[in-house]
Amino acid sequence: MYNEALAKKSANTIRVLAAEAIQKAKSGHPGMPLGCADYAFTLWDKYLRHNPANPKWIGRDRFILSAGHGSMLIYSLLHLFNYGLSMDDLKNFRQWESLTPGHPEYGHTAGVDITTGPLGSGFASAVGMAIAKRHFAAKTGLDKSSFYNPRIFVISGDGCMMEGCSSEAASLAGHLKLDELVVFYDDNNISIEGNTSLAFSENVAARFEAFNWRIIRCDNANDAAQCDAALAQAMVSDGRPTLIVGKTAIGYGAPNKQGKSSSHGEPLGEEEIAALKQNIGFDEAPFTVPADVRAYCDARCAELEKEAAAWDKEFQAFLDADADRAKVISSYLNTEVPANIAEELLKAAPLDKPVASRASSGTVLQKAAELVPSLFGGAADLAPSTKTDVKGGGDFSAENPAGRNIHFGVRELGMGLAGNGMALFGTAIPYTSTFFVFSDYMKPAIRLAALQKLHQIYVFTHDSFYVGEDGPTHEPIEQIAMLRTFPV
Amino acid sequence: MYNEALAKKSANTIRVLAAEAIQKAKSGHPGMPLGCADYAFTLWDKYLRHNPANPKWIGRDRFILSAGHGSMLIYSLLHLFNYGLSMDDLKNFRQWESLTPGHPEYGHTAGVDITTGPLGSGFASAVGMAIAKRHFAAKTGLDKSSFYNPRIFVISGDGCMMEGCSSEAASLAGHLKLDELVVFYDDNNISIEGNTSLAFSENVAARFEAFNWRIIRCDNANDAAQCDAALAQAMVSDGRPTLIVGKTAIGYGAPNKQGKSSSHGEPLGEEEIAALKQNIGFDEAPFTVPADVRAYCDARCAELEKEAAAWDKEFQAFLDADADRAKVISSYLNTEVPANIAEELLKAAPLDKPVASRASSGTVLQKAAELVPSLFGGAADLAPSTKTDVKGGGDFSAENPAGRNIHFGVRELGMGLAGNGMALFGTAIPYTSTFFVFSDYMKPAIRLAALQKLHQIYVFTHDSFYVGEDGPTHEPIEQIAMLRTFPV
Repeated sequence: MYNEALAKKSANTIRVLAAEAIQKAKSGHPGMPLGCADYAFTLWDKYLRHNPANPKWIGRDRFILSAGHGSMLIYSLLHLFNYGLSMDDLKNFRQWESLTPGHPEYGHTAGVDITTGPLGSGFASAVGMAIAKRHFAAKTGLDKSSFYNPRIFVISGDGCMMEGCSSEAASLAGHLKLDELVVFYDDNNISIEGNTSLAFSENVAARFEAFNWRIIRCDNANDAAQCDAALAQAMVSDGRPTLIVGKTAIGYGAPNKQGKSSSHGEPLGEEEIAALKQNIGFDEAPFTVPADVRAYCDARCAELEKEAAAWDKEFQAFLDADADRAKVISSYLNTEVPANIAEELLKAAPLDKPVASRASSGTVLQKAAELVPSLFGGAADLAPSTKTDVKGGGDFSAENPAGRNIHFGVRELGMGLAGNGMALFGTAIPYTSTFFVFSDYMKPAIRLAALQKLHQIYVFTHDSFYVGEDGPTHEPIEQIAMLRTFPV
Repeated sequence: MYNEALAKKSANTIRVLAAEAIQKAKSGHPGMPLGCADYAFTLWDKYLRHNPANPKWIGRDRFILSAGHGSMLIYSLLHLFNYGLSMDDLKNFRQWESLTPGHPEYGHTAGVDITTGPLGSGFASAVGMAIAKRHFAAKTGLDKSSFYNPRIFVISGDGCMMEGCSSEAASLAGHLKLDELVVFYDDNNISIEGNTSLAFSENVAARFEAFNWRIIRCDNANDAAQCDAALAQAMVSDGRPTLIVGKTAIGYGAPNKQGKSSSHGEPLGEEEIAALKQNIGFDEAPFTVPADVRAYCDARCAELEKEAAAWDKEFQAFLDADADRAKVISSYLNTEVPANIAEELLKAAPLDKPVASRASSGTVLQKAAELVPSLFGGAADLAPSTKTDVKGGGDFSAENPAGRNIHFGVRELGMGLAGNGMALFGTAIPYTSTFFVFSDYMKPAIRLAALQKLHQIYVFTHDSFYVGEDGPTHEPIEQIAMLRTFPV
């Protein structure tokens, strides 16, 4: 049962845990967790559908900390919500082999749904998650169910908003009307070099309106009640993705550093932590969760587990009602690939006649799409050239989410990052395609795919320097060497 | 003297030359030159300050074909305006070692001020050109002169607008109030995969308004009079960069392909070229400039040369009036570097004590900035970490264009491409800086710098995998190998 006073105290617990862990590590980013604690706790406590007992629960909403440097925010939340991060883990923040590395790492810490750090990347991958969810739901009839509707919640900072990849992804999300996407923009006016007014004076809300997003304003996102109101409004779709513009003070609560760039990327200092605790009336020993906060979160976890169990029952009934449908659902959830796929693909594209490799790749793709329902992707406005359309698959769109061909537009990096999100969502084997030379634009996305060990397929055609007549800007020379350098 | 009928005929000459050259080459992109011929010819004929007799004339405006695949547009213009491209050169379009390669190449064809092709890159580099111009003018007093005010004209297509790098650059340009920037958005609703509505339904004009740009609408940019009116309005600054939203039909004039994606990236075909010529009343043998068009362009070239000569006189008087100022101007125009700079820099940062390499780099930068006035740059919101602030140099801004430190914001690719534009403008040795791992975002920009053999300095700090606590997203492992793969 939601309790405003305890929610506030819980948010303050996050603040103190974050500040203390960063102080102990002697490095880290306190400003963001302190600024976003009220919003994030309100979200996790009252709106986020999740299941601490099963971090991979398929009914869960996704939580993307696109501003990944604020990792102590998610670690504190995972601790409060019993995801298996102990107080010792928090004390080991940023230590070698700890469960609490400097930036959140997928596959390493339970409850972390994506690796973030490079700014904008989490945002763009969230768009991919929404695409994968839409498609999965449409292909399986789950979109008609009353219970399946995972939302994708993102926290983005000013840095994420400045990166071009988030613009690419936001434009695509607005186009596709991905209303399961709820992005909180931590609008704190501070960047590393100082006030954002040094470099960033655009009207972010107006830009997102131009992208066909709904804007919800939260003029004081350090007030839990205002966060609550913004989230309540966000839960009722108007058919567009939602941007909550949350005005926060970076380092909120730290009396001498709040609102200053000095709170962004270095420990507050012992004195300032003492001042913070006094300022917010937090009277506990270091690394302590107050007993009433502990009890409050435990009670919420019990509720969440019950809710998840009820959901699981509905889902099981849905599976039991139609065995064929259940099989389809399973093929997506397990991204099933037939054991003999290599053999089948070779049969589909016999090597007895000379044929352009992209044509042969296109032939193979048709067969692969037939054998692997969860194979899902598209190109950055080059499908006719890269031969990546699944014939008869239809176009993926807001109106036809069952369509198998995604038109990513001329947005290579956004496409690559969306592909990562599609893989992370767990119901798709994504493929993304462009000319090989433009893999350059995708480098940061491919690196994140490698770090996360994602099953991602890249179809890079026009891979010889002998694309010839388009000239050096289109001739891949060093790209194969670049891709071979990835640590995998 | 401007003549509307002859201007129209000249635009049609561009259409036919483009269609014929592409047909002869058996590859190329006719849609864009046909769609943009009216705007481009109006611009070159009536507004662009240029000097065919001296393509490097320092008083010139810059023309950036960001939609570089439309290269036959600029080659036709260079032919009409006597830049030394012969009809044989046009006939050799896309042939090995011709002056008319598939995409425009800087340093290869006189009158081409930048290499373009990778979409969005020209747009973002144009912003760098405007930054360099502002700074140069402010540092030399030319901003107070009546004659020095080069404008930067860009033609961008839908693809450029979808790329994130143009968003990054546009946001920065709006922030810096770069009103010398006039971008024509060739809004033709067509992309390679089909109608832009497949992937791109945002309101571009509203987005640019959010970036603090002025919007001028040109509802029929295949009408020279409307292009003229839009340009006339664009010439009067309102203190913001200008976006002309020009509605065009791709492949305009080709009766069966106009408005269709089939006109974008392949020859029209002999039959359609015949139909085009009939449709626009162009009754000439292949590869022929009508005599009246030839005479009209020659007359304009003579005027332009006269205008340039008059300008040169004013400039010379400006130089003569103040010998010290003339020396400063020369140090920028020649991007002068003292012969003994290596020695001086080594003296500035003695190696007798162990010191962090980024600190040492920062020390060297101070000295270099002192010795090289045209050294000019900044960081992607990491200057305090990368130590790239020139102390006492001031912040570059709309209000203080003489400031030496550019705050690029968290926009690595936009920064890299702006750096290219700064180098291309000819008055700056640019440096750009971020953590080494984020050179990934800049790969497409660095490649273009290498292809154009630009004097660009990258300050990549945190270059050891031992950045440690920030974790793998921040640890450069493969970046040095990636950079070593560049063909130079």
